[in-house]
Amino acid sequence: MQSQIIDALTKIVGQEYILTSPEDLYSYSYDATPGFQNLPEAVVRPANTEEVSKILALANTNKIPVYTRGSGTNLSAGTCPMQGGIVMVMTRLDKIIELDSANLVAVCEPGVIVGDLNTAAAKFGLICPPDPGTVKTATLGGTVSENAGGLRGLKYGVTKHYVMGMEVVLASGEVMNCGGKNVKDVSGYDMTKLFTGSEGTLGVITKLILKLVPAPEAKKSMMAVFKNLDDAGNSVSGIIAANIIPATLEIMDNATIKVAEEYSKVGLPLDAEAVLLIEVDGNPIVVEQEAEKVLNVLKANNAFSVQIAKTAAEVDKLWACRRAALPALNKLRTTTYCEDATVPRSMVPKFLRAVQDIAKRNNVQIGTFGHAGDGNMHPTIVCDIRDKVEMARVETAMDEMFKAAVDLGGTLSGEHGIGLGKLQWMEYQHGPVTINAMKAIKRALDPNLILNPGKLVGEC
Amino acid sequence: MQSQIIDALTKIVGQEYILTSPEDLYSYSYDATPGFQNLPEAVVRPANTEEVSKILALANTNKIPVYTRGSGTNLSAGTCPMQGGIVMVMTRLDKIIELDSANLVAVCEPGVIVGDLNTAAAKFGLICPPDPGTVKTATLGGTVSENAGGLRGLKYGVTKHYVMGMEVVLASGEVMNCGGKNVKDVSGYDMTKLFTGSEGTLGVITKLILKLVPAPEAKKSMMAVFKNLDDAGNSVSGIIAANIIPATLEIMDNATIKVAEEYSKVGLPLDAEAVLLIEVDGNPIVVEQEAEKVLNVLKANNAFSVQIAKTAAEVDKLWACRRAALPALNKLRTTTYCEDATVPRSMVPKFLRAVQDIAKRNNVQIGTFGHAGDGNMHPTIVCDIRDKVEMARVETAMDEMFKAAVDLGGTLSGEHGIGLGKLQWMEYQHGPVTINAMKAIKRALDPNLILNPGKLVGEC
Repeated sequence: MQSQIIDALTKIVGQEYILTSPEDLYSYSYDATPGFQNLPEAVVRPANTEEVSKILALANTNKIPVYTRGSGTNLSAGTCPMQGGIVMVMTRLDKIIELDSANLVAVCEPGVIVGDLNTAAAKFGLICPPDPGTVKTATLGGTVSENAGGLRGLKYGVTKHYVMGMEVVLASGEVMNCGGKNVKDVSGYDMTKLFTGSEGTLGVITKLILKLVPAPEAKKSMMAVFKNLDDAGNSVSGIIAANIIPATLEIMDNATIKVAEEYSKVGLPLDAEAVLLIEVDGNPIVVEQEAEKVLNVLKANNAFSVQIAKTAAEVDKLWACRRAALPALNKLRTTTYCEDATVPRSMVPKFLRAVQDIAKRNNVQIGTFGHAGDGNMHPTIVCDIRDKVEMARVETAMDEMFKAAVDLGGTLSGEHGIGLGKLQWMEYQHGPVTINAMKAIKRALDPNLILNPGKLVGEC
Repeated sequence: MQSQIIDALTKIVGQEYILTSPEDLYSYSYDATPGFQNLPEAVVRPANTEEVSKILALANTNKIPVYTRGSGTNLSAGTCPMQGGIVMVMTRLDKIIELDSANLVAVCEPGVIVGDLNTAAAKFGLICPPDPGTVKTATLGGTVSENAGGLRGLKYGVTKHYVMGMEVVLASGEVMNCGGKNVKDVSGYDMTKLFTGSEGTLGVITKLILKLVPAPEAKKSMMAVFKNLDDAGNSVSGIIAANIIPATLEIMDNATIKVAEEYSKVGLPLDAEAVLLIEVDGNPIVVEQEAEKVLNVLKANNAFSVQIAKTAAEVDKLWACRRAALPALNKLRTTTYCEDATVPRSMVPKFLRAVQDIAKRNNVQIGTFGHAGDGNMHPTIVCDIRDKVEMARVETAMDEMFKAAVDLGGTLSGEHGIGLGKLQWMEYQHGPVTINAMKAIKRALDPNLILNPGKLVGEC
C-alpha cells in the first residue's frame, strides 16, 4: 500500500487507531474459519460514521479492498482479507444509543456485543431473541451482516426478523439511512433486509435499529433419547403437528452423542441413534400444557427415556450435554469444520442419514448436531488440515454433503453465511439467473468492487 | 402498439386471453386509488410462468411498459398503466400448489385470493396472518408485491414476515428462484425480501412459498371509550409496558367516531376523543389473563367505558363499529383518500393531534382511524375531486400530513405502498442517497425500465 494512503488513513483515525506492524496484520488475517488466511496491508479502527465515510471514500477512489469486521467469529471466512487492502474493525462503535421500551426497539452502534444488548434490554423485561453460539463475543454488526441464527430460530426467527432499520455507509462514502422504528413500513425497497446478511459486500453498517420482544415468563427443558433416528424425526413432526412451536428443539446424532458423552459424562447411552433437547417457553401455564403435550408425543414415538428438568441445576445439566457437542468434536482432531447445511424440517432424518452415509463412504469423521426444529443442521467434520490425503476426502465429503442438502430442498447455509467457504456451491443451489441478479445488485451498489470483494456472490 | 406486438402477444396467451377493445382497456385503466387513470394498449392474462416469461422477453426487446396486477385493490396507484403499454393480469395463476403442514408452508401461485389460502390452511389448524382489508378480493401476488399489512401487524408482523421464497420472472424473461422452505437461510442476498414490496418494479412473481403458523385457540375482544386522546395513547403504551402484545389494537378519532356512529348506530358517545378496540388471542388461559391486565390498564388510564364481548354476536357488534369507519367516511363525499401515514407507536397521539390541526387549518375533512398498536394510521380525507379549489386545500393538507409523519420518525406508508400516490414525498423521507441506491437497484435488475415504470422510486 502506498505510503500516502497510510498517511491519509492515519489522518482520518489518528495514529493510535491504525495498525501496520506484521504482528498486528497477522492478528487480523483470519477469522474462525479453518483454511483461509491472508495479510491485510493496514488495519483501521474508526470511531464513528464520519471516519468510516472518509475511509470508504478514500478506498473507493483508490480502488482498495475494504474488509469490515467485528470480533471475527465468522465461520465462512467472511471477514478474511483475501486480497489484502484494509481491514476495518468496528469495535470502537460500541454504544447502545437508545433503549426505547415504548416502541420496543433498541438503537445501537454495530460494535455492541450481542449479549450486552440483552443485558441492557433485560432491565425492561425485554429480549432481542437471536442467540448465536458466540453471543458473548460477537458484535451486532457482525451478526446482522451474517444474518446470524442460533437455537431459537424456530419460534423466534433469526436476526433479519429483528432488524428494523440501519445507517449504512456506501462504498462511495455516502451515508444512507433506511427503515426506522415503524413496525409497518413499505416506503421503497426494503434496503434494511437487503443489507442484512449481505456480509459487508454492499456497505458498512454504522447504526442499527433492532426490534425487542417481551422476555418469556417461564421455560421448561427436557431431553429424550431414541434408539432409532426416524423416531426422533417423527417426534419433531409430531410436536409441530400438535401446533406447538418450541423455543428450542435440538438434535444430536450417534457420532456426536458418543463424543459428547465421553467429554461431559452426563450419562447418554452410547447406542442411541439420536437425542432431542426441547425447551418450551412463554406463559407459565402454557409452558406446563405444552410440556405435557410434548411428553406425550415423545412417548408415542418410542422415546427410550425422557428427562424433564425440574431445577435450574437440572436444566444446566441437560444443556451441558448440547453445549458439549462442538467442544467435544473440536477436541478430537486439530481441525474442525462446523458447517450449517440446512434442510426443510421434514427432511432432517433423511439428511442425517445421508451425512452418515457420506462420512462412511469417504472415510471422514462427521458428527452432526443442530436445530431440528428449523432444519438447521451442523454436520461437523473433524480432520487434520495438514494431511493432504485426508483433506481430499474431506473436500469430496463436503461437496456431497452440501449437494445432498440442496437436493432435499435445503440451503448451503442456515446461519454461518457463504463468505468464501461455500462460494463454490452457490450456482448449484441458486442457478445462474439468481447469481447474475445478485451480482448485478453488487455492481450497482459497489461499482469499484471494494467491499469484501470476491465474497458471497463471488467475483463480479 | 404495433400490430405485430399484438399478434405476438396473442400467439403467447391465445386469442381468448388478450383484450384490446376500448371497454376492456378502460376496465384495466385504474385501481382503487382516486385520481390516477390511463388506458393501456393491451391486456394479457397469462396462464403460467412460461407465458409470463415470453411476454416479458417480448416487452423487454421492444421496450414496452408492463404493469402487472391481480385484483387491482391497490391504494397508491401501483397498478395504473400510466405510460400505456401492457397490463398483465395474474388471476389465472390461481392454484394452491401445496399445503405442507409438516414444514408449515404453503406454495401458491400469485393469483390465489388471500382468504382462500386461509380457508385451505384452516383445515390444518394453521393461518397465514397478514389480513389486509381486502382479504376476500386481493391476490397473494398483489399483497406480496405491496407488502400488505392489516389489523394484526403488531403481534404477527406484515406480509414480508411470511414470504419465504418465490419464483420471479425478471424483465429479461429469465426465471429466477429465491428462498425456499427453510426457516433459516442465509445463502446470498435476501432476494425474496427485496422483491417483497417492490410493487412489480423489479420482476413478476409467478410462485410464492409462504409461512404458516398455528391458529390461535382463543380470542377476546373489548372496546374502550376515552374522553381524552392522551388517555387512549397512554393506554396503548401501558398495554405494551405490561408486556402484552395484542393481536389487534385499533384506534378511532372523534371525527371518525361521529360518522361511524351515525352510520352504524352502535352507541358511541359523540364527544369521545378516542375509541380503542383491542383483541388478545392465543391460549385460552393466557387470553383471560391478558384481557384482565388490559382491563386494568384501560381503567387506570381513565377509560370512560369498557365493553368486553362475551358472545360471538357481541364480538361482531364491537368490530362492526371499526368496520364502519371507512364506509361511513366514504359515504360522506364523492372522493375518499384513505392514507396510511405511519409513526412509531409512542407518537400516535401527537400525530392524531397534528392531523386534526392540519384538517382545521386547511378546512379539509379528515377522519383518522387505524392500527394504534403498530402506529399505522389511516387519516382519511373525504372531498370532491371535481372541486379544484377544495382539491388545492386537500393537496396542502396531504403534504403537511405526510411531512408531519416523517418528522415524528414515521414513514409515508405502513401498508398501502408508494406507487405514484406518495412518490413526491420519497426524497423528503429518505434523502437523496437512499433514493439513488434504490434507483441503482431498479436499473440493475430492469435496465430497460419496462416494469411498472415511474413507480415507487420514480423515473430512473
